Amino acid sequence: MTGRSQVTSVAKIRADLRESVDDRVAVEEPLEIRLGYEIDGERHTSSVSITMRTPGHDEDLATGFLVSESIIRSPGDIAIVKPCKGDNTIRVELEAGVDVDLERLQRHFYTTSSCGVCGKASLDALRAVGVEALADDTRFPREALLRVPERLREAQATFEETGGLHAAAAFDPYGELLIVREDVGRHNAVDKVIGALFTDGQLPASRLGLMVSGRASFELMQKALVAGMPMLAAISAPSSLAVDLAREFNITLVGFLRGDTFNIYAGEERIAT
Amino acid sequence: MTGRSQVTSVAKIRADLRESVDDRVAVEEPLEIRLGYEIDGERHTSSVSITMRTPGHDEDLATGFLVSESIIRSPGDIAIVKPCKGDNTIRVELEAGVDVDLERLQRHFYTTSSCGVCGKASLDALRAVGVEALADDTRFPREALLRVPERLREAQATFEETGGLHAAAAFDPYGELLIVREDVGRHNAVDKVIGALFTDGQLPASRLGLMVSGRASFELMQKALVAGMPMLAAISAPSSLAVDLAREFNITLVGFLRGDTFNIYAGEERIAT
Repeated sequence: MTGRSQVTSVAKIRADLRESVDDRVAVEEPLEIRLGYEIDGERHTSSVSITMRTPGHDEDLATGFLVSESIIRSPGDIAIVKPCKGDNTIRVELEAGVDVDLERLQRHFYTTSSCGVCGKASLDALRAVGVEALADDTRFPREALLRVPERLREAQATFEETGGLHAAAAFDPYGELLIVREDVGRHNAVDKVIGALFTDGQLPASRLGLMVSGRASFELMQKALVAGMPMLAAISAPSSLAVDLAREFNITLVGFLRGDTFNIYAGEERIAT
Repeated sequence: MTGRSQVTSVAKIRADLRESVDDRVAVEEPLEIRLGYEIDGERHTSSVSITMRTPGHDEDLATGFLVSESIIRSPGDIAIVKPCKGDNTIRVELEAGVDVDLERLQRHFYTTSSCGVCGKASLDALRAVGVEALADDTRFPREALLRVPERLREAQATFEETGGLHAAAAFDPYGELLIVREDVGRHNAVDKVIGALFTDGQLPASRLGLMVSGRASFELMQKALVAGMPMLAAISAPSSLAVDLAREFNITLVGFLRGDTFNIYAGEERIAT
């Protein structure tokens, strides 16, 4: 079970007509990420995530998740990444000396332990682990940006026939896509992109933007920020907290990027006319 | 901060033109669900979920989440549901005698503890807590079903100006919407619908379908199943595991419900022509 899509029988209805056909659906299967780490000279293993994902690029998903959660910061933190116990578990063994805060991992930056639960606390939780506002001088020409959605659709069309997958891509200031990943979960698609950049030694990716096929949420902005990516561009709308994060941490946030139009919610100076 | 949308300043770009406007974005804020329960005569409190959500109907979200996770089964299980510590925490106190399996709650039905991680194990995990295949004889006429998406859009249009909210609705065999809820997270929108049905004493909702504005995933199917709802209809595509769950637990799964067309992936007998 490692394909991205599979065939299933479907009854297609149009007005009074009914037709039996074989159609493709996106594969959704759970993936468990097991993390091995050392405390006081002793090895431990914890299950840190079980997420529903589309199989493929699972190592990227696992490392991207750990980067997004600020568990690992450089490829040197990792000793081993490999599948285990079949297709749906990835084991990541950290080098000795890499600290792991499992309790914080459970909170997913949604809150700090010291104060209440609110959007501001979620932003403060990022600062508390040392995440800082971006300070690059990258510029993305307007025309280059306008080309990205069509290129993303073209890249999707080659290996997607299901209508059921989100896509994420890293793109450069010329609007070229460097990495494209798909998944039933949009956060997974982004983690796969970040994991691929990480393994390739390209983080922080201060010259690259992140394109997502859907909406821009706090969680996706946080992933772009931790990866050092100065722009997040979304086909659809951003949330309030995505806008807040973008403004506080100096990320350019573009929404409704369609045809020859888009909205800029933060960081307009990076968009060159 | 309890509104569903808020105003933010935006630069709107169209080709070479730039315009500064005030626009609305969907509010996203964390909500913590704190669960109070009794073990051996002693009260305990645990934080069981922190999720990013759009404020509004938070009590429905909390109870719907606990129903979806099979923690509570009838309104009599709950002693108190109320906000605490500001707007972003809901406290749910269970009556004495209601068992809570917090470890299982963490696994979210994605796996059983006894075997590996795969789609089949996720379905087995549902059976392990006593969830059974549905055995209703509810029928939804084709014409009634075709009316639901437009009614959902109309209901959304009245209180949504952001383009950033998912919607979910419970509908009856006449295609009438009984409950509509919106959220930045689609699982939250569904939990809010289920929570409202639960509190109103309408579960199991064996005469109602669940409509969702996006795609149909395992997680959404599981929520419909636990609520006893015999149909899930989605505007977009289902995943492979959503189809598997629908077939194994006898739920009617409809996808790509648009205009006068839809696809039936499971349970066609409930759709009357």
